[in-house]
Amino acid sequence: MHPNLRKRTQVKFSDPAQLEPVDALFLAQPRGQAQHNIEGYTKIGAKIIDLSADFRLRDAADYEKWYSEKHAAPEWLGKFVYGLPELHREDISKAHYISGVGCNATASNLALLPLVQADLIDLSGSVIIEIKVGSSEGGADGNSGSHHAERANVIRTFSAFGHRHTAEVIQEMGIQDISLTMTAVDLVRGVLATAHAKVKAGVITKDLWKAYRAVANQNPFVRVVKEQRGNYRVPEPKILAGSNYADLGFELDESNRHVVSMCAIDNLMKGASGSAVQCMNLMMGWDETLGLEFTGLHPI
Amino acid sequence: MHPNLRKRTQVKFSDPAQLEPVDALFLAQPRGQAQHNIEGYTKIGAKIIDLSADFRLRDAADYEKWYSEKHAAPEWLGKFVYGLPELHREDISKAHYISGVGCNATASNLALLPLVQADLIDLSGSVIIEIKVGSSEGGADGNSGSHHAERANVIRTFSAFGHRHTAEVIQEMGIQDISLTMTAVDLVRGVLATAHAKVKAGVITKDLWKAYRAVANQNPFVRVVKEQRGNYRVPEPKILAGSNYADLGFELDESNRHVVSMCAIDNLMKGASGSAVQCMNLMMGWDETLGLEFTGLHPI
Amino acid sequence: MHPNLRKRTQVKFSDPAQLEPVDALFLAQPRGQAQHNIEGYTKIGAKIIDLSADFRLRDAADYEKWYSEKHAAPEWLGKFVYGLPELHREDISKAHYISGVGCNATASNLALLPLVQADLIDLSGSVIIEIKVGSSEGGADGNSGSHHAERANVIRTFSAFGHRHTAEVIQEMGIQDISLTMTAVDLVRGVLATAHAKVKAGVITKDLWKAYRAVANQNPFVRVVKEQRGNYRVPEPKILAGSNYADLGFELDESNRHVVSMCAIDNLMKGASGSAVQCMNLMMGWDETLGLEFTGLHPI
Amino acid sequence: MHPNLRKRTQVKFSDPAQLEPVDALFLAQPRGQAQHNIEGYTKIGAKIIDLSADFRLRDAADYEKWYSEKHAAPEWLGKFVYGLPELHREDISKAHYISGVGCNATASNLALLPLVQADLIDLSGSVIIEIKVGSSEGGADGNSGSHHAERANVIRTFSAFGHRHTAEVIQEMGIQDISLTMTAVDLVRGVLATAHAKVKAGVITKDLWKAYRAVANQNPFVRVVKEQRGNYRVPEPKILAGSNYADLGFELDESNRHVVSMCAIDNLMKGASGSAVQCMNLMMGWDETLGLEFTGLHPI
Repeated sequence: MHPNLRKRTQVKFSDPAQLEPVDALFLAQPRGQAQHNIEGYTKIGAKIIDLSADFRLRDAADYEKWYSEKHAAPEWLGKFVYGLPELHREDISKAHYISGVGCNATASNLALLPLVQADLIDLSGSVIIEIKVGSSEGGADGNSGSHHAERANVIRTFSAFGHRHTAEVIQEMGIQDISLTMTAVDLVRGVLATAHAKVKAGVITKDLWKAYRAVANQNPFVRVVKEQRGNYRVPEPKILAGSNYADLGFELDESNRHVVSMCAIDNLMKGASGSAVQCMNLMMGWDETLGLEFTGLHPI
Repeated sequence: MHPNLRKRTQVKFSDPAQLEPVDALFLAQPRGQAQHNIEGYTKIGAKIIDLSADFRLRDAADYEKWYSEKHAAPEWLGKFVYGLPELHREDISKAHYISGVGCNATASNLALLPLVQADLIDLSGSVIIEIKVGSSEGGADGNSGSHHAERANVIRTFSAFGHRHTAEVIQEMGIQDISLTMTAVDLVRGVLATAHAKVKAGVITKDLWKAYRAVANQNPFVRVVKEQRGNYRVPEPKILAGSNYADLGFELDESNRHVVSMCAIDNLMKGASGSAVQCMNLMMGWDETLGLEFTGLHPI
Repeated sequence: MHPNLRKRTQVKFSDPAQLEPVDALFLAQPRGQAQHNIEGYTKIGAKIIDLSADFRLRDAADYEKWYSEKHAAPEWLGKFVYGLPELHREDISKAHYISGVGCNATASNLALLPLVQADLIDLSGSVIIEIKVGSSEGGADGNSGSHHAERANVIRTFSAFGHRHTAEVIQEMGIQDISLTMTAVDLVRGVLATAHAKVKAGVITKDLWKAYRAVANQNPFVRVVKEQRGNYRVPEPKILAGSNYADLGFELDESNRHVVSMCAIDNLMKGASGSAVQCMNLMMGWDETLGLEFTGLHPI
Repeated sequence: MHPNLRKRTQVKFSDPAQLEPVDALFLAQPRGQAQHNIEGYTKIGAKIIDLSADFRLRDAADYEKWYSEKHAAPEWLGKFVYGLPELHREDISKAHYISGVGCNATASNLALLPLVQADLIDLSGSVIIEIKVGSSEGGADGNSGSHHAERANVIRTFSAFGHRHTAEVIQEMGIQDISLTMTAVDLVRGVLATAHAKVKAGVITKDLWKAYRAVANQNPFVRVVKEQRGNYRVPEPKILAGSNYADLGFELDESNRHVVSMCAIDNLMKGASGSAVQCMNLMMGWDETLGLEFTGLHPI
């Protein structure tokens, strides 16, 4: 299954029915399964981290709106904490049940976090987020569109708006007029979210530096990337492959208050399993970065 | 120089000083050279098509603003027609001097053309254009950032705003509050411009279909791509490699008037030499599509 | 199906049962179908070009050996001419039934052709052919191994020897001790065959030049590529995408008689449909290059 | 310089003239520098690992033959041990001076090691090694050929034979009639060497399994990859990016004694700095795998 792990592990897949009680249970199933079996899972894992979309939204009506079906366990929605430590570190530390995060939602939420935390956005206008993604976002199974001869070399805007991860950004950022536009490019791992908004009148570049540095200082996996020289002046997903970092960058056009905020992540790490492990560390009272120390590769 | 032409041509490079009079002269030089020698070139070519940025802007002040230097031949700016047939077919047909077009400007202008021609955009807001580009945009010479080991696998937002091609979009579309955000991806040929705007109150999807079809009907190299099925539902640059087509697509969110308009081109064809040849055809009174019949490849 | 052909053709797929008589019938079906229906097809097409592997081998026993099943119409094998004009131009011109060619076999046969035609190989040793291929070789359907996230970035030697196309090289080159080793790389269109052999004692580089130039002179789609300077000194498949050329190159180590002969093609053109069209042109008495004039793109 | 290390290290480059004595000194300079300054360096580092090609060959005449210049410190050649632990673990453990290894030489040497160690090759014939390489082999500096628009999508056989790394394979394997053919493909990190040879009469697949498993058992970074199912049945460089593993595989055609032996590595790790660190660990008496535990990524 994971050929890179040869000679390094003897771990085998076993039947879910054979699960024995554990301290922390990760659920990594297709959407819909966890919500139907959540009662049973709580008997196996005192602490649960569910990577699916089942428990990300707080409101059952939102779930129905975005996923076009009723939630099977709405009473459980309020018991889960949204699993992005940069947003909910304290709550995660105390929680028993943690949801996973959408990869595109994570890149979007972290691109907006410094602006929202410092209350710099003029919310009278729209927030537009353009997201470029690699092919591993589509999961492990292929289809005719993911066939290499079709998927290679693409610049394919497969969702102009209405992507389900939008719901997580609206919920977590508290911004209603927001859209995610999704474009697939030729890469396996990586997401770049580029958010466009207007800042409030009077906001200058110095304010942004302060806001971004604050977020980086508060979070071990957030870095600000804004260089004058070199090939890597802005957040770049490729050097994050395998790492849990979220690299943030920004540009402000003071003449018209247009801010461009960028966040690069590895969708399979910070955008999925990396954040999940980080949550486990917090829940267990361990060092938040445990097992997540890999720095990524260069060149790659 | 162009290894694909082996056994097909014996054309050789010769010194510019040895040029003999021709019916139509193409200038393909670094920016700055044509404006210093334009008088001389008019003695060689009765009709001139200059692919550089020297004569794209009508206003010498604009040139100075965007290129940070005074124009050397401002009196010639008014004698050139901007060389995008979809915008200036009639004028080009009668012109003696034609400017080239910026590749990113072309993708942007054509993404906006149906909306502007039908007067559908609410101009009280900003127009944001996100552009994804291949490596051939950078010209034939490499640098440390274009080295394959650094340039492969990128999603690199190298210009948040302020790209010089913006000036051509402002001029040609007559929209002031517009920005181009440039992101390099792993591809050689191709540009996709994704424009975000608000449509006027009351505009519905049907109005957009009418506007886009009108532009496609008026222009032999414009197609509308908006499919419900298949792998190629939206404009996709890769299948345009070598072709002169501009493929347009759109999505409208009627709930909040957000329109997403896309244009895919081959930056070296419709975004440069293809449009230049199309202009020559018009100037010479020939069939507009002469020499530009290649349809692109699939798969690729 | 082929999105690049939008606005250029209204051709539609129709049911095979509705076929009406034609001058030339191309069969492009999965292996096995043509051999079961060949009698019927001859009533529709006076001239037939079958692109499958059904009629490539002359000997029914060879077919059974390489394809592990009995041939359904062995009496037809002798009526077909192997459809590579560089090997059988005269016979093709007079034939009614032409087989297609294997793409890897074609690259191998053309890499060896100058050496075999000039009788330069020392056949007491083995001929080893290393072939690197793009993903379009695998056909239009994807599988888990062709999923972009798995297929991107590969250098995957999926067949050390025993590839079925080997049978076509043995048959056409008359060499028994020959092997094809197949390695998939990250490309969509293109094959490079690199053949290793020993030349006969006394053969020098000048003899090779003569042999390769002879083949290029005899064949409109063969070129010799062997440059001292530039980025394209050797045959390079990428610049052949969409073209019907076979580019040949070679190096000889006179100290130990080791010759390395290379052939680059587009597997979908010279290695499949391009050669098929070329055969049709010959059968119909038309210019051999008709409809095959595309020169490929650079850069790409 | 290495943007992935942001927030993880404050290490800075300093002038070589400011070097202070260290336990182990790594030299990573262009070829030629170490040999001119080796006396000086021994005063700084009691143990030296030189990654350049300066001290890889034991014989000054070989150096002159392959590098076309006299060696500046021939008396030092005998003091260095060739730095591939799989070949010289004992000597490395006791050595003060270790040479680096050529990346292509390493993939070749390890592909041949099981066959040579078990004495299975029929040396009356040639050994042909076909090597496919990524762009990071070319070093950190770009040139016109490494420009992304030219280097992307290549299958480029840039050296048919005569590559300098051949000298290291001849020296270490003790085989004279051997050639390395180098082909660049579209990948950043990774090398696959595919070696072709004849085994001695009577050798069967079972003998090869024994030979390969023996090498894997003796070496912590060697694995045998030879699967019947899945997408990763053979050694595949891409999943080794960042790891120090050498994955070996083989196929034997018992009918004609043709063996195909494959070795995949990350050229920057096992083929360069990874082996260098492994050597340091051995020299210092530390665990051989220290600092080299990264397992690579999947998917990638």
